[in-house]
Amino acid sequence: MMVTEQPTESLAYSAPDRGQGKQITLAHGEGGRLMRRLISEEIVAALGNRYLASLGDAAVLPSIQGPLCFSTDSFVVTPLFFPGGDIGSLSVYGTVNDLAVAGARPRWISLGLILEEGLPIQTLRRVLASVAEAAERADVQVVTGDTKVVPRGAADGLFINTTGIGEQAAPVPPGPTSLKVGDELLVSGPIGRHGIAVLAARDELDFDPAPTSDSAPLVGAVAALRDAGIPLRAVRDATRGGVAAVLHEWAEASRLTLSVDEADLPVTPEVRGACELLGLDPLHVANEGTMVVAVPAGASSRALDVLRSVPQATGAARIGHVRERTLAGVVVRRALGREHPLDEPLGAPLPRIC
Amino acid sequence: MMVTEQPTESLAYSAPDRGQGKQITLAHGEGGRLMRRLISEEIVAALGNRYLASLGDAAVLPSIQGPLCFSTDSFVVTPLFFPGGDIGSLSVYGTVNDLAVAGARPRWISLGLILEEGLPIQTLRRVLASVAEAAERADVQVVTGDTKVVPRGAADGLFINTTGIGEQAAPVPPGPTSLKVGDELLVSGPIGRHGIAVLAARDELDFDPAPTSDSAPLVGAVAALRDAGIPLRAVRDATRGGVAAVLHEWAEASRLTLSVDEADLPVTPEVRGACELLGLDPLHVANEGTMVVAVPAGASSRALDVLRSVPQATGAARIGHVRERTLAGVVVRRALGREHPLDEPLGAPLPRIC
Repeated sequence: MMVTEQPTESLAYSAPDRGQGKQITLAHGEGGRLMRRLISEEIVAALGNRYLASLGDAAVLPSIQGPLCFSTDSFVVTPLFFPGGDIGSLSVYGTVNDLAVAGARPRWISLGLILEEGLPIQTLRRVLASVAEAAERADVQVVTGDTKVVPRGAADGLFINTTGIGEQAAPVPPGPTSLKVGDELLVSGPIGRHGIAVLAARDELDFDPAPTSDSAPLVGAVAALRDAGIPLRAVRDATRGGVAAVLHEWAEASRLTLSVDEADLPVTPEVRGACELLGLDPLHVANEGTMVVAVPAGASSRALDVLRSVPQATGAARIGHVRERTLAGVVVRRALGREHPLDEPLGAPLPRIC
Repeated sequence: MMVTEQPTESLAYSAPDRGQGKQITLAHGEGGRLMRRLISEEIVAALGNRYLASLGDAAVLPSIQGPLCFSTDSFVVTPLFFPGGDIGSLSVYGTVNDLAVAGARPRWISLGLILEEGLPIQTLRRVLASVAEAAERADVQVVTGDTKVVPRGAADGLFINTTGIGEQAAPVPPGPTSLKVGDELLVSGPIGRHGIAVLAARDELDFDPAPTSDSAPLVGAVAALRDAGIPLRAVRDATRGGVAAVLHEWAEASRLTLSVDEADLPVTPEVRGACELLGLDPLHVANEGTMVVAVPAGASSRALDVLRSVPQATGAARIGHVRERTLAGVVVRRALGREHPLDEPLGAPLPRIC
């Protein structure tokens, strides 16, 4: 006997199809039946685990040993999808990486969604699938969440906040105040990829090949350094403001000068070409899966060997060193061997990249 | 010798004054010097504690005993300020209350800000001062944060996400699946105040006296019940969807019928008047400092005594009881003693109330 497929009740909560597919409506955020169904049929269905599925106001998690690491990040990137990633995976890796570079093993994250009325349900589904895949890849669980809907025009499609808890893993890098003259500076891969990928996607710039974001979890790379016993001074993911922002912060914290050699910076041909065209310095362009690492003098080749053995850091490179403080906190040796102070911009060249 | 007061450098990051005071600019969100100064001079200055002041990517917190509670909430209320509260205090109490009703002692919260370009710095300062005061009142620390700026028109002034960690305090209320026939239902105070206050402020309705929000921490009230040894079945703050949403959820979880007597519902004259005028049922209107509590038969008068001894719950009342399941999950005895099923609306009458 044939069974005719009926429209499932699970789609009945959507707004009428006006040629753009089902959409988020204000009613999805108001605490009634529509919201409960959106949460159970879309969010829990995509991300489900026993903590999230209980749908309580708070997740009750097992105790963890020792200090907790706690980090939050909101994501407002436009466009929502770009080569190499999307707001969903970005929101997982962003928080997970903040925990990892602080010396923690990320365990759990929360997911706060602010949806704009009219957002296609299909877009939400794609983003949630990406969150789920990224959480799996970074080995964290989404254990609690919240969903708000704002009227058309009151938000830009979809904003995400993730907040993460990690357990501290010993030894913890002591941070930039521990930097010493002679320390060596590494990056875990080619720089500036995320910012250029988002810019190209947003402005529909026709670069060929299209630049792709480096968006990825750094958990494995940090753990590999720790497990190999590499002595670490400081580790930081180079997000907004790029590698330059990390170097400026470290120079300020250490009161030393950080010196970088332009010729040693790993930059892909796509990023180099786009930066030349647009007049940007790759040092100032955001990354979302690339970190700066400072190790004591002499430790850089072992550290590079370890990093290059990890999929997210095969392109790791030594980019410079720490020396006595001179006038500028950060200097770059440019073409012809001339040293120039590196600007710390007031803002940054690229808004809305995370 | 007189010293002429110079404009302090601390204001130099603000946009030019165009008659509306200093404003947030896109550059405040881009990882450069302006962002660092906004964070240190406004956010850390307002909320400072040793965790936040370290300005790392993640806060490192002391270990806590036993299970962790973890909860997130985003706040998109409009207007940002309303009688009885504002988005700042609301964002603290919202998350703290979710932890408290889950049986936890709230300890730490994160603060994720999404600012719209053009937001007056003065508005941000007021909100941050309110966050600080609310955190003090609820005995939690803001230990980590994030700030993003989106272009004018891409968000509605200011959105806040807070995510909280609490430590579980024994005994934990077992939750709505534990409800039994005869259990008694209480609320901790007059219902519907938050939703009506926000609605009146938003639509500039001239009620006299102006309705005020119940926005407040419930931590003390839940702790008082626990400390007094009151047996608790389930506790829930009645936010979006109001008391009705809690009753519907509990009816579904317990497969019993929850019966409420309209005459017993505590409702202020302002809320009653506004609801009559607007055709709203106070049961469906949001609260932000009022909870529903289920206790075993016979425990309600002791529970009420305890609640009424706490400043946030002086208006606590018994509103109904649990009985064998009949057709409707939630029934209300209305005027003339007639029982009516209580609707579970698809959405809710009032958007943007939290």
